[in-house]
Amino acid sequence: MTEQVQQVVGFLGRGVVPPDQPVIVADDLGLTRGDGVFDATRVVIDGAGRRVDNLEAHLARFVRSIGLLEGPAPDLDAWRRLIAEAVAACPFTGEAILKIIWTRGRESVHTDPVGLLTITPMTSAAVAQRAGVRVAALSRGVASDAFADAPWLLGGAKSLSYGVNVAVKREAARRGADDVLFVSTDGYCLEGPTSALVVAFGDRLVTTPRGATGILASITQEIIFEAATAAGWRTASELLRAEQLAGADGSWLVSSVRGAAPILELDGRPLPQNADLTARVVGWSGF
Amino acid sequence: MTEQVQQVVGFLGRGVVPPDQPVIVADDLGLTRGDGVFDATRVVIDGAGRRVDNLEAHLARFVRSIGLLEGPAPDLDAWRRLIAEAVAACPFTGEAILKIIWTRGRESVHTDPVGLLTITPMTSAAVAQRAGVRVAALSRGVASDAFADAPWLLGGAKSLSYGVNVAVKREAARRGADDVLFVSTDGYCLEGPTSALVVAFGDRLVTTPRGATGILASITQEIIFEAATAAGWRTASELLRAEQLAGADGSWLVSSVRGAAPILELDGRPLPQNADLTARVVGWSGF
Repeated sequence: MTEQVQQVVGFLGRGVVPPDQPVIVADDLGLTRGDGVFDATRVVIDGAGRRVDNLEAHLARFVRSIGLLEGPAPDLDAWRRLIAEAVAACPFTGEAILKIIWTRGRESVHTDPVGLLTITPMTSAAVAQRAGVRVAALSRGVASDAFADAPWLLGGAKSLSYGVNVAVKREAARRGADDVLFVSTDGYCLEGPTSALVVAFGDRLVTTPRGATGILASITQEIIFEAATAAGWRTASELLRAEQLAGADGSWLVSSVRGAAPILELDGRPLPQNADLTARVVGWSGF
Repeated sequence: MTEQVQQVVGFLGRGVVPPDQPVIVADDLGLTRGDGVFDATRVVIDGAGRRVDNLEAHLARFVRSIGLLEGPAPDLDAWRRLIAEAVAACPFTGEAILKIIWTRGRESVHTDPVGLLTITPMTSAAVAQRAGVRVAALSRGVASDAFADAPWLLGGAKSLSYGVNVAVKREAARRGADDVLFVSTDGYCLEGPTSALVVAFGDRLVTTPRGATGILASITQEIIFEAATAAGWRTASELLRAEQLAGADGSWLVSSVRGAAPILELDGRPLPQNADLTARVVGWSGF
């Protein structure tokens, strides 16, 4: 029993295809091993036109993710054409999510890598969560320096191997929370399963350092920090203990899909909130 | 440019389908999130018939993996019928690998979970490695107790999110090794990316403890331990430091595909070998 799907699907080298048409064979390594990467950003379709948020920054991160998996450099012009064709084909209006996916190709025979994309209307849950999220802090099972000198752990890659990132959302729901903040085994804040952490202390914004933590470089966090810097704020990458969020002026989980969502509660305890500050951070994020 | 593929593909609810026919849609969660599980075992097709090694044990582990992802219990009779149909349809003889795959279904609309399988001839590399493997010890980025009280990390599940398990094999190749032994950040042997560790000290076999280590329950290790116990050997689950393997009488990476492969070298240093002992362990494994 399948509902009607409102989705645009594109396949690199083939163009837009019907969304209910299977496109991946049974031994594709993206499926059988999670051996691939993706990236995602917002598409807005309204009276002013059709735009993809920060497409070049997302393509650049996509290239870095593929490089971390030692895949060949993708043909970005082919990707840009496919994305443009798919965006033009959207039969819906409003906000949507563009996801671009790269897999290594088939396991049992040599093939070229596979590229595909989906554009799917934004869920009402994502929109509602912009008003704020209740967050559960959950162990990521790794120390804050676990990824130093271990590139095979794929730190910083937006990998298709996101099974844990899905499982933690189920655990959050069980705890009455909307989202998750991953915490290292040595007690430091890392990132959300599909978002980055930004924290304000006075006129200073802090996020999690990259590199040894293994977290993903967040494009939304970068955009917020650039705008904050232009507005005279200071910014830094620093490890924060989860307890420190209670002493901050505001904390947000930021992503290209949801923008900057204020963390209302962490493990059931309210965190400091400031509507003006959130409005400013949301504005900096471009949402 | 695609080579001819020798593979049998089955889709639950549909039966055997052509191996080059796409079966997975673009927003299947097994693809987009690695949100699914698999299991694998050997199929042997020869003059004596067609047999699947330890099928019921693999189906039982498949059920446990799905349960760890909180999926609904699969219809095992439907799986058994699909497997029988696919095995009967194999156009090749010799050894092959049966892989059964479960995904949660589509992301953007509610669907039932997806079940599919592949049967692929054994690679010559897997056969050659039965004579022994040179192994690189690589950090898994986690402490040996990282999975205690953290079921959302999916310890013990044979997850489709195996991107790291693939990446470490590339790192091994770069180091001139054939395979990998994952080591915890506190220095203990864990498992291989697609195998378990068995070590002999005198008439005693040791493997890695499950549970807090997050390792997968190995069916081949269980079979070896059962046969060894019947032969009067002692067995134990104990954390071993990587250095301890140099003082053992033999070490093997064991799996349902390759059987018991003796570890010839660890990080370029020879490990103790004993051909009689390896023959005994291989015999216990059923290979």
